[in-house]
Amino acid sequence: MNAWLTPWNDACCRMPALRLLDVHLRGIGQVMFQNHPLSGLLFLAALVWGAAAADAWPVLFGGLLGLVAGTLTAYGLRADRANLAAGLYGYNALLVGLALPTFLEPSALLWFYVVLGGAVSVVGTLGTAQVTGVFRVAALTFPFVLVTWLLLLATYGFAGLQGAALPYASAVAPVDPAATNLLDPAAFVGGVLQSISQVFLKGDAISALLLLAGLAVGSVAAAVWGVVGALLAVVTAHALGAESDLVSAGLFGFSPVLTAIALGAVFHAADAPRLQVIGYALLGTVFTVVAQGALNVLLTPFGIPTLTAPFVLVTWLFLLPRLSAPQADGG
Amino acid sequence: MNAWLTPWNDACCRMPALRLLDVHLRGIGQVMFQNHPLSGLLFLAALVWGAAAADAWPVLFGGLLGLVAGTLTAYGLRADRANLAAGLYGYNALLVGLALPTFLEPSALLWFYVVLGGAVSVVGTLGTAQVTGVFRVAALTFPFVLVTWLLLLATYGFAGLQGAALPYASAVAPVDPAATNLLDPAAFVGGVLQSISQVFLKGDAISALLLLAGLAVGSVAAAVWGVVGALLAVVTAHALGAESDLVSAGLFGFSPVLTAIALGAVFHAADAPRLQVIGYALLGTVFTVVAQGALNVLLTPFGIPTLTAPFVLVTWLFLLPRLSAPQADGG
Amino acid sequence: MNAWLTPWNDACCRMPALRLLDVHLRGIGQVMFQNHPLSGLLFLAALVWGAAAADAWPVLFGGLLGLVAGTLTAYGLRADRANLAAGLYGYNALLVGLALPTFLEPSALLWFYVVLGGAVSVVGTLGTAQVTGVFRVAALTFPFVLVTWLLLLATYGFAGLQGAALPYASAVAPVDPAATNLLDPAAFVGGVLQSISQVFLKGDAISALLLLAGLAVGSVAAAVWGVVGALLAVVTAHALGAESDLVSAGLFGFSPVLTAIALGAVFHAADAPRLQVIGYALLGTVFTVVAQGALNVLLTPFGIPTLTAPFVLVTWLFLLPRLSAPQADGG
Repeated sequence: MNAWLTPWNDACCRMPALRLLDVHLRGIGQVMFQNHPLSGLLFLAALVWGAAAADAWPVLFGGLLGLVAGTLTAYGLRADRANLAAGLYGYNALLVGLALPTFLEPSALLWFYVVLGGAVSVVGTLGTAQVTGVFRVAALTFPFVLVTWLLLLATYGFAGLQGAALPYASAVAPVDPAATNLLDPAAFVGGVLQSISQVFLKGDAISALLLLAGLAVGSVAAAVWGVVGALLAVVTAHALGAESDLVSAGLFGFSPVLTAIALGAVFHAADAPRLQVIGYALLGTVFTVVAQGALNVLLTPFGIPTLTAPFVLVTWLFLLPRLSAPQADGG
Repeated sequence: MNAWLTPWNDACCRMPALRLLDVHLRGIGQVMFQNHPLSGLLFLAALVWGAAAADAWPVLFGGLLGLVAGTLTAYGLRADRANLAAGLYGYNALLVGLALPTFLEPSALLWFYVVLGGAVSVVGTLGTAQVTGVFRVAALTFPFVLVTWLLLLATYGFAGLQGAALPYASAVAPVDPAATNLLDPAAFVGGVLQSISQVFLKGDAISALLLLAGLAVGSVAAAVWGVVGALLAVVTAHALGAESDLVSAGLFGFSPVLTAIALGAVFHAADAPRLQVIGYALLGTVFTVVAQGALNVLLTPFGIPTLTAPFVLVTWLFLLPRLSAPQADGG
Repeated sequence: MNAWLTPWNDACCRMPALRLLDVHLRGIGQVMFQNHPLSGLLFLAALVWGAAAADAWPVLFGGLLGLVAGTLTAYGLRADRANLAAGLYGYNALLVGLALPTFLEPSALLWFYVVLGGAVSVVGTLGTAQVTGVFRVAALTFPFVLVTWLLLLATYGFAGLQGAALPYASAVAPVDPAATNLLDPAAFVGGVLQSISQVFLKGDAISALLLLAGLAVGSVAAAVWGVVGALLAVVTAHALGAESDLVSAGLFGFSPVLTAIALGAVFHAADAPRLQVIGYALLGTVFTVVAQGALNVLLTPFGIPTLTAPFVLVTWLFLLPRLSAPQADGG
C-alpha cells in the first residue's frame, strides 16, 4: 500500500502545490502519529463524514482554517523544514481549529480566534519541543490543549465570543450512581468506536472506521493498539462506575486510545521486551481512564473541557522513565 | 546502634527473603529520608500503633499493599538496583496506599485502586527523577501527591469509589476568626507531636515519638530538625491566625516538618556555613506554613486534601538555587 | 543622557551607601527591564506620585520594605554579584511589597508578610533562574507571581491577615454584554496610559508618563513598544468584548505592555529580521490579551488577582522557540 509513496514524493518535489497538500495531509495524520499522506486523507474523510452526519460544517471549516494558519505561521517563522514536511506543525493547529467551533457559536470573531489559535499553536509547538526535548519526550498535543484552554477560558470574559457547547461551570459533586447503568452490547460497541472518533472531537462510528483504516495504512500495530485502548478504556470506565452516557459517547476513551497507541505502537524502544511494552502500555491506558475522570472533576469549576490533557499527562509520565526510547514524534 | 548493620546486610545478601524485607523497611524509612531498615521498622511500629489506636486497619493494610505493589513494579520495570535497594521506589507507593483508605471507603475497587496507584507511583518516581535530575533536586513526594490527587479527584466521577473523609468541595471564604483561639499548653504539645505523625497521615502522639526514635536511629540531626520544624510550624500558624483545631491536629505542621528535615539535615551542602544553613531552613519552614494555608484554599473547590504538596513546592524552590548541593534522595 | 553614568558608577565604587542606592534603583528599573539608575529613579517618582494621588502610602512603604528585604536576602545568600548589582534580585521583591498592601489591610502581620515575601522572592528568583536557564529564557516576574499568589491565597485561612481589595471568590459565569459599551476617546486614552501604570499596580496617567520617561532613558525602543503594547491591548480587548471598566482601568493591558517590551525591544535576537521581530511581538501581545481574559476566569473561584502571570506565560511561550536569542534579563 506504500508503493506509490515514492512517485508521490517525487511529484511533491516537482510541484509546490502538491507539496503543500502533502504537508497538510501529513499534519492531519499526525493527530494520531501517522506521518503519511494517505492516513491524513482517510482522517480527513472521517472529518468530512462526521461534519456531514452531524451537520457541523463550521467545525470542519475551522479545522482546515486552523491547519492552514498553522502551516503558514510555521513557514513564516522559518521553522525546521523536516518537521514541517512531516506535518508536525499542523496537527495542533488542526485540533485548535476543530475544537473552537465545537464549543463556540460561529461568528466573525470566532474565525479570528481560530486563525490566532492556529498561529499561536505553532509557537506553542516550537516552545514545548524546546522543553520536552531536554527530557527526550515529544510535545504530543500539549500545545493544542494549552492554547485552546486559554482561548475557551477567556470567552467567559469576552462578550464577543459565545459558548455553544461549553460545559457548565459548577461545583464539584459526586456522580449520581443511578447514572451508571449496566450497558447493552450496542452501547458498548458504540462506546468503543466513539472513543476512537472522539480523538477528532466526533462521536461517529463510521468516522471511527475511517480513522482505523487511516491508522492501518500507516501502521497496523497502531490500529490494533487503538482498538485495544478503546476496549480497555470502556471496560475500565464501566468497572469504576463512570457515567454510562459519557462512556458510550466515547468521552472516557479518546485519551486512553491515544495513550495506548503512543505507548504500545509509537514510542516504545525497539529493544524493549515485547511483554514489558505490552504491560506498560496497558497500565498507562488504564491510568489514563483515571486521569480522564480526575480532569473532568478538576475542570468542573471552570466550565472548559479536558480535551486530550489526560493523554498528554499520563503519556509524558510514562515516557519520561525512558524504558522506551523515543522513536517518533507527533500527536 | 549501627554496628549490627554489616551482619544484617550480609544476611540480606545471602537470603533473598530478608533482602525483600530490607527493601520494604528502607522504603518505609525513606518517607522521612532514612535509608535504614531500623528506621523503617520503627516507622512501621508507628503505623501499627496508629492503626490500632484509631481502629484504622484498612489504612495500614492499604499502605503495605501499595508498598508491595510498588516494589514489585520496580522489579518488573528493571529499575535501577541501587535506588531500589535504598527503598527509593517504595516510599511514594506506601504513601499512596496509606492515603487512599484514609479518604475512601473500603471496597474491592479500593484495593484495585491501591495496587494501581502503587504501581503508577513507581512510574511517576522514575519519570519525576528524570525531570528533577536535570535540575539536581530530588523527586521528594511529588509522585505520591500527583498520583493520589488524580485517584482522589476521579472518585467524584466514579460511583464505584466512595469518599469517606474527603474534604467537602466548597467555595473559598475567609476563615472565621472565632475559630482561632489561644491555645492551652496541652493542645500546643499535641499540635507539635501530631505535626510529626501527620507525615504518615496519623494524628497520634505515641506514633510521633516512635517516628522521632526512627529518625534518631538514622540521623540525630534529622530528629532535631523534625522537632524544630514542628515547633516553628505550630507557632507560626497560630501567630498568623490559622484555625486552632487544624493546628492542634498537626495539619499545618506535617509539610513544614519535612521541609525542616530536608533543608536542615538532608540536602544541605557539606561546605555551607552552619548559620546560613540554619537560617535558610528556618525561612523555608516558615514559608511552608504559608504554602500549607495557600494550598488548603486552592484545593477547597476540588474537595481533595493537600497531602505533602506544600513541602514539595517549597523544598524544590529552596533546593533549586543550589546553595545546598544535593547529598541524598528520598521522601 | 547617559554621559553621567560613568562618574556615577565611579562614585558608587567609592561609596558603599551610594552603591546600595544604585542597586535599589536598578531593582526598581528592572520591573520594566531597565538596568539603569535613572530609569529606577523615574519609576520611583511614578510610585510616589501614584501613592500621593491615591493616598496609598502603605503601598509605597510596602514596596520599599520588600525591596530592601530582598536586597539584604540576596547579600545574605551570597548571590551572584553581577546580577545583584544589576538589580535582578530586587524587582520581584519590590513587586511583592507593592502587591501585598494593595490587596490586604495594613497591620503588623502585613509588614512581616512583606519582609517574608521579599526574602522568599529572592530564593524564588534564584530557583526559577536555575530552571529557566536550562531553556535559555529569563525568570521574568514569575517569582513575584508565585510568592504573592501563595501569600494572598493563604490569607483566606489566616485570621491575622484581612483582605482589603482582594477579588471576591465566586463561580465562573459569562460577562454581561451590557458591561461592554463603546468607549469615548477620553476613556480610550486613559485605558492606554493606565495599562502602562498598572505594571506597578497603579491606575494613574501621570505615573504612566513618568514610567514612559524612565523607559525612554534606558531604551527608546522599550518606550515605543510599551505604548504600542498598550494601544494594541486596549483595541484588542474592546474588539473581543471585554468589560469596558476593566479595559479603561488598564487591567487588560499591563501584561500585554510587558510582553510587547520583552518581545519587541529586549529579548529579540540581534540578527533576526526586523519584520519578523515586529510580527512576532504583535502576535504575542494580542495573545497576552487572551491569556489575561483566561486567567481572570481561571482565578475567579480562588479570589486572587492574576498579577503579571499572563505576561510570564505568553512571553515564556514566545521566547522558548529561540527565534530570538536571549540578550538581557529582568522583569
